Amino acid sequence: MASWTLPQPMDRALALAAQAAALGEVPVGAVVTRGSKVIAEAHNGPREHHDPTAHAEILAIRRAAETLGDERLSDCELWVTLEPCAMCAGAIVHARIGKLYYAASDPKGGAVEHGARVFEQPQCLHRPEVYSGMGEGRAAELLQAFFRARR
Amino acid sequence: MASWTLPQPMDRALALAAQAAALGEVPVGAVVTRGSKVIAEAHNGPREHHDPTAHAEILAIRRAAETLGDERLSDCELWVTLEPCAMCAGAIVHARIGKLYYAASDPKGGAVEHGARVFEQPQCLHRPEVYSGMGEGRAAELLQAFFRARR
Repeated sequence: MASWTLPQPMDRALALAAQAAALGEVPVGAVVTRGSKVIAEAHNGPREHHDPTAHAEILAIRRAAETLGDERLSDCELWVTLEPCAMCAGAIVHARIGKLYYAASDPKGGAVEHGARVFEQPQCLHRPEVYSGMGEGRAAELLQAFFRARR
Repeated sequence: MASWTLPQPMDRALALAAQAAALGEVPVGAVVTRGSKVIAEAHNGPREHHDPTAHAEILAIRRAAETLGDERLSDCELWVTLEPCAMCAGAIVHARIGKLYYAASDPKGGAVEHGARVFEQPQCLHRPEVYSGMGEGRAAELLQAFFRARR
């Protein structure tokens, strides 16, 4: 029996999350694609960069916008291993990301299906299509192993 | 009769907002202080930087964290001319900003007293002290003049 194959960008985002863990950063990875092309990628890095905004999504969005020379990423997709927080969900809105794919949901810090539910606010200027769950087992395992090792 | 004098950091944030307008950016300015010392400042610049995350608050927080070599700005104050959006409110949480002062409220895009109300979420990990309204007339006038000229 063949098992289902994770879409390549999410597989890559998970590899980036593992890289973050190896550096002592909370393991989250993100990839921005436009169709079949990877535009930018990043792993979580607030400690490395001394930057509280350096979540994987923010870094990937910033790099994609720089690469494309455009602050709008309307025809792009964002693949991330964890449900975005309020900061990152807000950045997704500002960047006009077309589709958001995330792996694990995050009841503690997520702001898509939890808490601030940024995209559900009536004032929200742009709502990406949102798909969650693919790769969630691997994403959650990376996070659990990371926090287990720090206790 | 002497008129009330705006605190110096908010006066500076308003000057930064005016600089943004002169560059064709939505006029918002931000200053990070630690006590009486200015640590970092910025004006809104998503167009200039081709960066959808380049709001005044994000830039000022990133510069302050870089200057201090610490991703936490716990003993710092953020002065901004407009109510922060969800992205910026989230960044304020991650940076552990101690006190937030903002001038004009923003019913359309704000996420402090409107919309996502990021700091009021039960899951919110850090809540700054929030003071609003000082300089709101000047901040709103800058924004109104900017959008009037673009119509």
